Amino acid sequence: MRLAQALFAPRAVALIGASGDPQKNTARPQRYLRKHGYSGRIVPINATRDEVLGERAYRRLADAPGEIEHAFIMVEEVEAALEDCARKGVAVASIYSNGFADAGAAGAERQARLVARSRALGVRLLGPNSMGVVDLPGRLALTVNAVLEADALPAGSTSLISQSGTMLGTLLSRGAARGLGYAKLVSVGNEADLGVGELVELLVADADTRVIALFLETVRDAERLASAARKAHAAGKPIVAYKLGRSALGVELARTHTGALAGSDAALDAFFRDCGIVRVDMLESLIEIAPLLRDREPARLQRPARVAVVTTTGGGAAAVVDRLGLHGIALAGMHDLTMAGNAQGYRATLEQLLASADCDAVLAAVGSSAQFHPEFAVQPIVTARRTAKPLVAFLTPHAERSLALLAERGVPAFRTPEACADSLAAFFAWRAPRSKPEIGVRHQFNSDPFAMLAALGIPVAENAIVQPPDYAHRVRYPVALKRIGVAHKTEQGGVALNIRDDAELAQHARRMGDDRLLVQRMEQGLAEAIVGYRDDPVVGPLVLVGAGGTLAELYRDFAVALAPVGEAEALAMIERVTGLAIVRGYRNLPRGDIAALSRAVAALSRLALMPGRPVREAEANPVIVKRDGVVAVDALMALKE
Amino acid sequence: MRLAQALFAPRAVALIGASGDPQKNTARPQRYLRKHGYSGRIVPINATRDEVLGERAYRRLADAPGEIEHAFIMVEEVEAALEDCARKGVAVASIYSNGFADAGAAGAERQARLVARSRALGVRLLGPNSMGVVDLPGRLALTVNAVLEADALPAGSTSLISQSGTMLGTLLSRGAARGLGYAKLVSVGNEADLGVGELVELLVADADTRVIALFLETVRDAERLASAARKAHAAGKPIVAYKLGRSALGVELARTHTGALAGSDAALDAFFRDCGIVRVDMLESLIEIAPLLRDREPARLQRPARVAVVTTTGGGAAAVVDRLGLHGIALAGMHDLTMAGNAQGYRATLEQLLASADCDAVLAAVGSSAQFHPEFAVQPIVTARRTAKPLVAFLTPHAERSLALLAERGVPAFRTPEACADSLAAFFAWRAPRSKPEIGVRHQFNSDPFAMLAALGIPVAENAIVQPPDYAHRVRYPVALKRIGVAHKTEQGGVALNIRDDAELAQHARRMGDDRLLVQRMEQGLAEAIVGYRDDPVVGPLVLVGAGGTLAELYRDFAVALAPVGEAEALAMIERVTGLAIVRGYRNLPRGDIAALSRAVAALSRLALMPGRPVREAEANPVIVKRDGVVAVDALMALKE
Repeated sequence: MRLAQALFAPRAVALIGASGDPQKNTARPQRYLRKHGYSGRIVPINATRDEVLGERAYRRLADAPGEIEHAFIMVEEVEAALEDCARKGVAVASIYSNGFADAGAAGAERQARLVARSRALGVRLLGPNSMGVVDLPGRLALTVNAVLEADALPAGSTSLISQSGTMLGTLLSRGAARGLGYAKLVSVGNEADLGVGELVELLVADADTRVIALFLETVRDAERLASAARKAHAAGKPIVAYKLGRSALGVELARTHTGALAGSDAALDAFFRDCGIVRVDMLESLIEIAPLLRDREPARLQRPARVAVVTTTGGGAAAVVDRLGLHGIALAGMHDLTMAGNAQGYRATLEQLLASADCDAVLAAVGSSAQFHPEFAVQPIVTARRTAKPLVAFLTPHAERSLALLAERGVPAFRTPEACADSLAAFFAWRAPRSKPEIGVRHQFNSDPFAMLAALGIPVAENAIVQPPDYAHRVRYPVALKRIGVAHKTEQGGVALNIRDDAELAQHARRMGDDRLLVQRMEQGLAEAIVGYRDDPVVGPLVLVGAGGTLAELYRDFAVALAPVGEAEALAMIERVTGLAIVRGYRNLPRGDIAALSRAVAALSRLALMPGRPVREAEANPVIVKRDGVVAVDALMALKE
Repeated sequence: MRLAQALFAPRAVALIGASGDPQKNTARPQRYLRKHGYSGRIVPINATRDEVLGERAYRRLADAPGEIEHAFIMVEEVEAALEDCARKGVAVASIYSNGFADAGAAGAERQARLVARSRALGVRLLGPNSMGVVDLPGRLALTVNAVLEADALPAGSTSLISQSGTMLGTLLSRGAARGLGYAKLVSVGNEADLGVGELVELLVADADTRVIALFLETVRDAERLASAARKAHAAGKPIVAYKLGRSALGVELARTHTGALAGSDAALDAFFRDCGIVRVDMLESLIEIAPLLRDREPARLQRPARVAVVTTTGGGAAAVVDRLGLHGIALAGMHDLTMAGNAQGYRATLEQLLASADCDAVLAAVGSSAQFHPEFAVQPIVTARRTAKPLVAFLTPHAERSLALLAERGVPAFRTPEACADSLAAFFAWRAPRSKPEIGVRHQFNSDPFAMLAALGIPVAENAIVQPPDYAHRVRYPVALKRIGVAHKTEQGGVALNIRDDAELAQHARRMGDDRLLVQRMEQGLAEAIVGYRDDPVVGPLVLVGAGGTLAELYRDFAVALAPVGEAEALAMIERVTGLAIVRGYRNLPRGDIAALSRAVAALSRLALMPGRPVREAEANPVIVKRDGVVAVDALMALKE
């Protein structure tokens, strides 16, 4: 792969705008390449100097001798530098300079022009606004990130792709402090050309990489990333993501910060789950979970996961177990070895649990011995005969040596009870990438929402349009009368319910006063649901099912998946909706026709298969769930512009 | 205070069961007292040796010369040791030995006998199952906790009371690693005698203590702790608690582990809030929040808190801000100084924000410079002119030296974005201890739930008891007919609604078949609520208000407070119930009579004032919230046995 070689293992690197002042950021790549033992040629380019930090420099790239595979651009005149790169035959230009999509509309236009030109010239771009690339086993430190000031950084089998340049340094620094190293690290900046998806593909092909970690503020190339995630799964390389934008405030911030759409958290959560990407909630989980994922596959449990605990510190173990409970994980026994001080017994207990069928993971919680006697505390853990079952450790005191010993032996070890529980929960929530359902059917587009639902195969309430003066129709009474195209019509007096005859109908219709009104048979059932579809600008088509009614909106109680989904997947989504428990057999309440609801969810999701995907949003709300069947009594649809 | 002196600053300590084998736990107190420079007399008591670890030892306490203020008991024969202590005039005995309430029913009985005897003898007890006491400024390391192996542990102004002995070491160790020291640390064990509440009182009187931290698995002495918390507030000493038992699994574990009732998380949350105790969610918050609380008072904001951010790392700051958003905290501007490298400008920005009226706290998020240039990164933060407004720091890389520098200067600094957001959220959720409402009224007890509600002043639906054969009554139709004393009667066919006349009533009544049935006027309103009362075995009387109906139960959507509450507090509780938004003006829906609902909540809470508190639980559910007034249509009451 010419690209991978030029990006990660170039034989020569040009530093365009290299500074001779070692205090400056732009002097760092040269210093760091030397410091960390880069074996290729370093070619500083400086408009006014023939020597930079003691090395021969050139005024222009054209003046430099030999072939250059990778250029690191740190000057304001990025466009001119790109032309120079093309003339020199440079394969990859990493651009540290900013002022592109990170800088408003004018910057975005500048970036679009830059990308178009780079394509024409055949130069691949990393950035702009990238802090560069690091390959620790390969000794390439082509970056301005100050964490490379560190004298030695451990190499490891995790590679990182980060949308935040500074966080690349954060993860590297925090990992190094406790023996968790990295293979390759890439700061993608604005992803004008090389994006997260394509970089994941490169890492799938990279022999040094066993786990791929992503620090994300948004997703700019959902389709490519989804496809890359499938390839990673096939190659046995787990992907784990930490993504900003859990809260509305975070979403807004990411938009401001990256100039990109950030996407709703629910949409991205569905995207990660369906692509087989593990999602962690805490920053340090992104570092600490790697050994837990390495060489493992999703657990595929059809029941809550069970974790067995071996501990010398009841309080410390409880701090983890308490949070596991919040994630719905069960405890498969707590083995308190307090004051036993028996390493052999400890190890035997671990081995017995690792071999047992009664738990899905084993947690060793270690107390103060982890700080002062790492050999003793860690010995039973690292020497215990491993099985495929995860064995993880939580150390309660400040115990970096023990953490490093565990890291060295590949045992997942956690610094905080929260990241430990978060990582175990993320591990057990991990699923293989969902295969797209095989659906051959194509549906006729219809701009009328009810007709569109019916065409998809979703039962809709018997209905008719009525008009003055007589408001005639053939719908069986009792009926509801609704104004058409009015949002929140219930609150606006635009709905009349339980109308018993023509006279009552006419009276309500005259009050509403519209020329066209909707008459609909009254439907009753056990519960109301909402079934929705959205062609999300970030992750593409999504389907949603939630509890219906105002309360459900207040509680944000819904499940989302990438569309289309089959009925089995739709059923799994329904299981995740708290409010629909009332039709799943809660407290001996009568069960609703969940199978029919799942058919409706799957049906609406097939809007994703419609040629040209004309629908932006569609919603059947409420869908009445009956003992036998479901029926949609209101529908909305919005088309793309 | 003789007790405080004997506990924390004894002039002589007896170590009953001191071992001569330095590897043993029971040798530790002697080693640690020496190692950390204890200046008093150490008196090892060993049944078979005259010398222990090079010091003169005695076979029996009675043989030891001079006065002994504090004994540390490590032998199995605790009872005999206690008698020895009493004879020797020992004021406090700390008991490391276990096998008491921590060991089942027989152990609990043994503990009860021990306490009774200690009271008779006039010896105060710490434990049993206590790891002891540490006073860092006072150089007392009377503990078996192995963290005292550390050569130097920093003294600080935070004191810790821990129900987990090992976690005492954890907090000390983690604090020490980044310059956050402690004053006193107490492992309370089973709290047979000296409990958390009384120890808080001692710390309120302790000159070295400015912040009181609690690591809790349960609360054993709610009344005393509540009273101590008021004293701490009056003395300007904030209390912060980390409590296990967030999840049902954690509650169960705490019960098993401590042998004590753990209490529901909602009950304890109400307890902490109403006592003015800050509650943190993450373990490291308990360490890191101390400088944020020290010398501060609750912020008393009547609106969401606003945090301004100054950063050199957009991604790092966003990791905190994203989580602040989840806590409902707003961003008051993000000042990104990336690549400015201007310490003076940095400091000026901080000072401007600290002086501004537009934010309630300032967060400085520092990137990689925190690791390699602590002086530079930390300088603007520690030199900025402080105001009463909190200034906190989050450091993205591994940067212990910077953390220590900030700690030294009293700036709250956080290692993880999660603990930073958690601590800021806890700080802004902090309230002064709630003053008990002045309520003079006393109500007549009535064992009939409806009559009891009415006596408290809660409107109840017009109702009557009907009996065969004629089921006569005077309630206006339409009515509901209900079976009496049947739980979940809706699901069991025990309710008939919308009955229009006597004939229909008789028909339903005959079907139900009971001798006595309840007839009740049908009530309609805008929403249903639940109002509940519970005399909690852990924290005492509680009042609850929540959204009514099955869904609300599924969503666990309720607010809890210590009872009694006044109407203003009840109103604040109602504001916290998500589902009641529909009667608070949501989406132009008609507003319900929230004032009447708050009167009902306050009224039910007055069960707490009834002499003898005969009621264990009471519930008005549903309470119909109308435009004008509320009315309870069902009621349950359970008395204490």
